[in-house]
Amino acid sequence: MEYQFCDRIIWGSVIGAAALVCILFSTALAMWVMRQPQGSSAMKKIATAIQEGAQAYLKKQYSIIAVVGVIAAFLLEYCAGWHMALGFTLGAVLSGVAGFVGMHVSVRANVRTAQAATKGIEPAFKVAFYSGAVTGFLVKGLALLGLFPILWWLVSEGSRTAVETLVALSFGASLISIFARLGGGIFTKGADVGADLVGKIESKIPEDDPRNPAVIADNVGDNVGDCAGMAADLFETYVVTIVANVLIGCAINVGSEAFIMYPALIAAVTSVASIIGVLVVRLRDQNIMKTLYTSLLISAALSTLFIFLATQWFTQTEVGMMAIGEHFSLRILIGCAGVGILLTLGLVWITEYYTSCSFKPVRSIGDASQKGHATNIIQGLAVSFEATVVPTIMICAAILTAYLVGGLYGLAIAATTMLSLSAVVITLDAYGPITDNAGGIAEMSHMDSKVRKITDQLDAVGNTTKAVTKGYAIGSAALAALVIFAVYVEDLSYYFPKSCLTFSLTDPFVIVGLLVGGMLPFFFAGLSMTAVGRVGGRVVEEVRRQFREKPGILTGKDLPDYGKSVTILTQSAIQEMVFPSLLPVLTPIVFFHIIQLVSNTRVAFISLGALILGVTLTGLFLALSMTSGGGAWDNAKKFIEDGAYGGKGSVAHEASITGDTVGDPYKDTAGPAINPMIKIVNIVAIILLMVVYKMQC
Amino acid sequence: MEYQFCDRIIWGSVIGAAALVCILFSTALAMWVMRQPQGSSAMKKIATAIQEGAQAYLKKQYSIIAVVGVIAAFLLEYCAGWHMALGFTLGAVLSGVAGFVGMHVSVRANVRTAQAATKGIEPAFKVAFYSGAVTGFLVKGLALLGLFPILWWLVSEGSRTAVETLVALSFGASLISIFARLGGGIFTKGADVGADLVGKIESKIPEDDPRNPAVIADNVGDNVGDCAGMAADLFETYVVTIVANVLIGCAINVGSEAFIMYPALIAAVTSVASIIGVLVVRLRDQNIMKTLYTSLLISAALSTLFIFLATQWFTQTEVGMMAIGEHFSLRILIGCAGVGILLTLGLVWITEYYTSCSFKPVRSIGDASQKGHATNIIQGLAVSFEATVVPTIMICAAILTAYLVGGLYGLAIAATTMLSLSAVVITLDAYGPITDNAGGIAEMSHMDSKVRKITDQLDAVGNTTKAVTKGYAIGSAALAALVIFAVYVEDLSYYFPKSCLTFSLTDPFVIVGLLVGGMLPFFFAGLSMTAVGRVGGRVVEEVRRQFREKPGILTGKDLPDYGKSVTILTQSAIQEMVFPSLLPVLTPIVFFHIIQLVSNTRVAFISLGALILGVTLTGLFLALSMTSGGGAWDNAKKFIEDGAYGGKGSVAHEASITGDTVGDPYKDTAGPAINPMIKIVNIVAIILLMVVYKMQC
Repeated sequence: MEYQFCDRIIWGSVIGAAALVCILFSTALAMWVMRQPQGSSAMKKIATAIQEGAQAYLKKQYSIIAVVGVIAAFLLEYCAGWHMALGFTLGAVLSGVAGFVGMHVSVRANVRTAQAATKGIEPAFKVAFYSGAVTGFLVKGLALLGLFPILWWLVSEGSRTAVETLVALSFGASLISIFARLGGGIFTKGADVGADLVGKIESKIPEDDPRNPAVIADNVGDNVGDCAGMAADLFETYVVTIVANVLIGCAINVGSEAFIMYPALIAAVTSVASIIGVLVVRLRDQNIMKTLYTSLLISAALSTLFIFLATQWFTQTEVGMMAIGEHFSLRILIGCAGVGILLTLGLVWITEYYTSCSFKPVRSIGDASQKGHATNIIQGLAVSFEATVVPTIMICAAILTAYLVGGLYGLAIAATTMLSLSAVVITLDAYGPITDNAGGIAEMSHMDSKVRKITDQLDAVGNTTKAVTKGYAIGSAALAALVIFAVYVEDLSYYFPKSCLTFSLTDPFVIVGLLVGGMLPFFFAGLSMTAVGRVGGRVVEEVRRQFREKPGILTGKDLPDYGKSVTILTQSAIQEMVFPSLLPVLTPIVFFHIIQLVSNTRVAFISLGALILGVTLTGLFLALSMTSGGGAWDNAKKFIEDGAYGGKGSVAHEASITGDTVGDPYKDTAGPAINPMIKIVNIVAIILLMVVYKMQC
Repeated sequence: MEYQFCDRIIWGSVIGAAALVCILFSTALAMWVMRQPQGSSAMKKIATAIQEGAQAYLKKQYSIIAVVGVIAAFLLEYCAGWHMALGFTLGAVLSGVAGFVGMHVSVRANVRTAQAATKGIEPAFKVAFYSGAVTGFLVKGLALLGLFPILWWLVSEGSRTAVETLVALSFGASLISIFARLGGGIFTKGADVGADLVGKIESKIPEDDPRNPAVIADNVGDNVGDCAGMAADLFETYVVTIVANVLIGCAINVGSEAFIMYPALIAAVTSVASIIGVLVVRLRDQNIMKTLYTSLLISAALSTLFIFLATQWFTQTEVGMMAIGEHFSLRILIGCAGVGILLTLGLVWITEYYTSCSFKPVRSIGDASQKGHATNIIQGLAVSFEATVVPTIMICAAILTAYLVGGLYGLAIAATTMLSLSAVVITLDAYGPITDNAGGIAEMSHMDSKVRKITDQLDAVGNTTKAVTKGYAIGSAALAALVIFAVYVEDLSYYFPKSCLTFSLTDPFVIVGLLVGGMLPFFFAGLSMTAVGRVGGRVVEEVRRQFREKPGILTGKDLPDYGKSVTILTQSAIQEMVFPSLLPVLTPIVFFHIIQLVSNTRVAFISLGALILGVTLTGLFLALSMTSGGGAWDNAKKFIEDGAYGGKGSVAHEASITGDTVGDPYKDTAGPAINPMIKIVNIVAIILLMVVYKMQC
């Protein structure tokens, strides 16, 4: 017992230290970034406009989310107890902080990257890459920080209350992240679609032209969508996956703390691997993609090593030997962790294949563009459909391997290990909008064309890295969701110990659950696409109005009113995000009650279980196809702009702009938001189970 | 026993008579149509070109299918016995005949409809409507004709061999229909996309302009895709649904012939209801849609009445009382049949809502077109996603109601009853391409613009009726597939009587099956979209070549080489159809063997079961979204051409042409082909089960 306590202290110190190290590393990088020069006053002025717009939007968005959050917290307190309300609040606040700080840094890094570009590509890369890492490690640090006290409580007391608090923590993180992803996604793509339609297509002015009244809004969008939204989303993915792993650990062997300690241990030791992975790389031969992937590969290799060492230590401790040793050997645990690492690398590779200009899919879209708008879209849709095939096979192989090697817990370990690379993946992703913005600032402040060329070079890989993150996030989400489903099943038998519980595909209630669940991502995607179209339409009207009322804008004589576009977008995006975000929260509850009405509580919970699996199933396919397809459309345009198939101004170029615009809501609004959506449905089902049980007692 | 035999004779006479009546009615209508005048020699010349093109294509298509068919028949003979090879051949040949005759009539009806249009809208409507009915009743008659001897055999001897023959019959029908649907779909949409791209967009010549070298090919496409392909598809749907119902009847109560007789009885008596439904309506107040729906409603009402009477008689016969009476009351059976009728009407109504110009979805696409190509596509995709929601809820409600009322057999009865309306639905569908072609002939032979106006009026509802058929087909396919899945489960326990068989969602092999199955429709859709894009591209090249080499074509001085486009399309479409068509045949077999390799035969069959359910699940959503979305895009264009949002020549019009072109492969290639694809996967799984079992014995 004394030994056990000692092991626990070591474990706790490792987790706590990892959280602190991540946060300190992130802070140090942030301070380094802030010390970089900001450039001319023209640049500063534009950067300030972007900063103010982003700040104003996030403030408004978080105040709306706060209202929903407070209601949810009160409901949880009323139905399930203060501990769940508290856990929920903690998850929600940390998710909000992750998003806010991510945005805060990136709106300051963009202008510094532009300034650094005056000195060459290496310094600019460094600023953008390290700024991305600020968000990456902050997300990881905050997640560990939030999880640490509850896990400690759970390890010490093994109480059900602690488990419930963990679930509530995930719910908080998920609820905020779906709002942030969707609100930010609608804002950024509404701005992008709107700006492109009037700017590039109607008025034939280039991208990021200061004459376009929506240009600042477009840049603001990159920050609130791709930085803040993405950070909240990945924070959620990280937290939910570890929680799912802990929960399945509890379910397998209630009271055995080792199963709870192990996933957190993986999360902790891999932080250090990621820090090294970020610090050691330098841009060489101007091959940016190679540099980014080198960083990822180093992190992956080191993570594997550190997981091996940590597992070796852990399986030899008193607590580890007693519990883990009975079920798992070192080899099994390392095997499952290896599956997670391999799946990550596999998904990165296949997403790269589908979205990079170097391979057939993107080129086929470029080729099809020569024949016009419609063939561009048809080919893009074809690519988006086909992009689901190999990832699905990879995920299936990973599921079977992990499961055959280590059972459900092994599958959960694979998911957790996947997420262990999240800090580096977020770094790669957050890097994108920063360089994109840097290019915008360079354009708008009329900097030397050399600077713009450098930022363009940096930005060229941004589309692919952004697509890669999304493929990674949705792949890990699928594994995590399957684990949560298993937790749901375990919980169900915990709360209804005497019932016969089978989720048989021959049961019509299971079929109906699968159908309704499968339909949800389609409904959700439809709603988000409509929202982007509508918001984009409002931007178009506003820009047209400004051009009409002040014809001097187009000649450069008058200054457009940038703020007005930002305000309109803010209002519309927030208005549009509410219903789709609430859909995955409310549907499971309504569905449960309807089925309960026509049958009974037990059947309703079984049907609800099928529903959450249905959501995961079609959600995975839709998200994979939307994120890859959107990325491919975007890069097909880039490929043509680089001179292929007629280059800028050709028929193919015009068609590719259409494809890019269609791909925008695909890859940056609907697609990525399906990721938190899947998990919300899962967590709501688990909470519903807890609440209904408590109400019945 | 003697009484039983007497009942069986009555039953057999009813089925046989129904088959004959349908075929005779179809023949009588065909003769009436052929007696109508063909018009001027210019018209005849064009019609002949279309006829020859369609005939040449179908000949080539069927000769390729024949090769696949012969191989499949030999394999079946080798693995499972001659009876299955024979059943397969019967199904394949009948499906081929249905498609061939459907095409044969429609290519002759088009010119007659155009000629009738010189006398007014009523005569033209009558010709087109009755020509559609030729296909409708032929499909129904041939299906009953093919099923009758095997059902009689099954009823008389109750042998397993007869059951297997029935399964093989379905397989034959499905295999041909997927080739026909896909090959025809690729042809028609390759031609359509190609003709539109060079014609309308590049050269700015109107639709059906004789200067366009792809114009005859486009008209040929309507016949081989929308007539022949659709006829083969609906033949398959009809046969498979009844077979599934019979099989579940056998499984519930092996040896009880009543369960086998009842579904065929429904199919037979409702034929008469449909004949009346077609004969009594007359076009009034030029409201075509109302006339078509009146025909459908009358058929539905009469079908309900006839089913009621037949059920009343059947439950009072010796055989009916003994078997059915034990499990079902008259009220239960009528209840389940009512669910089928209501679901049909519900799906028709909701598809009409999503694809008719009178409602919000189509108008929202039209509205979005004003802002350009991209917003048209975004809104169209949004509509296509959202169009899955209400049908899914309706299907779920139908599943639960039918199941709670009458169990699995009740669900099967609901599916069979849905299909009882197929003759009228096919009539409505086949009517579309005939009027479309009539318009083309009127345009090309420079008939009075009054004639074109009439055919346009007739054709205006064609998009909606075509979409309606597809919504109906996929809805019924989902029910049928669920029934087949249940049959698969029953068969599995028949062949592996001692094994524990649970399809639990907590089993990773079930999850993997669902994932791989769910991925298939996406893969299939991607392949078909690519195929259309590629074939369309070849048409574009050919048309550009003709314009380049003979500049006189555009000025009307030179005649284009129509035949060359048809030949190119024929070759490309047939080349492109093979791989996607074989995908659903081979995947279950390969998947089964892989899973068998990593585990064992029993687990592999369970995993395969999950796969077929996964295909049904995502296939339903994709097919619903593609067919509705495509229909909506098409009608949005029509709506704009009728003067809305700026009318012809406006920005909105150009954008809507893009949307229409994208919608083409959505609604006429990928979407509808998912329907036979779902069922092929299901049937292949059942056959695999039979074969593996036989091989093991």
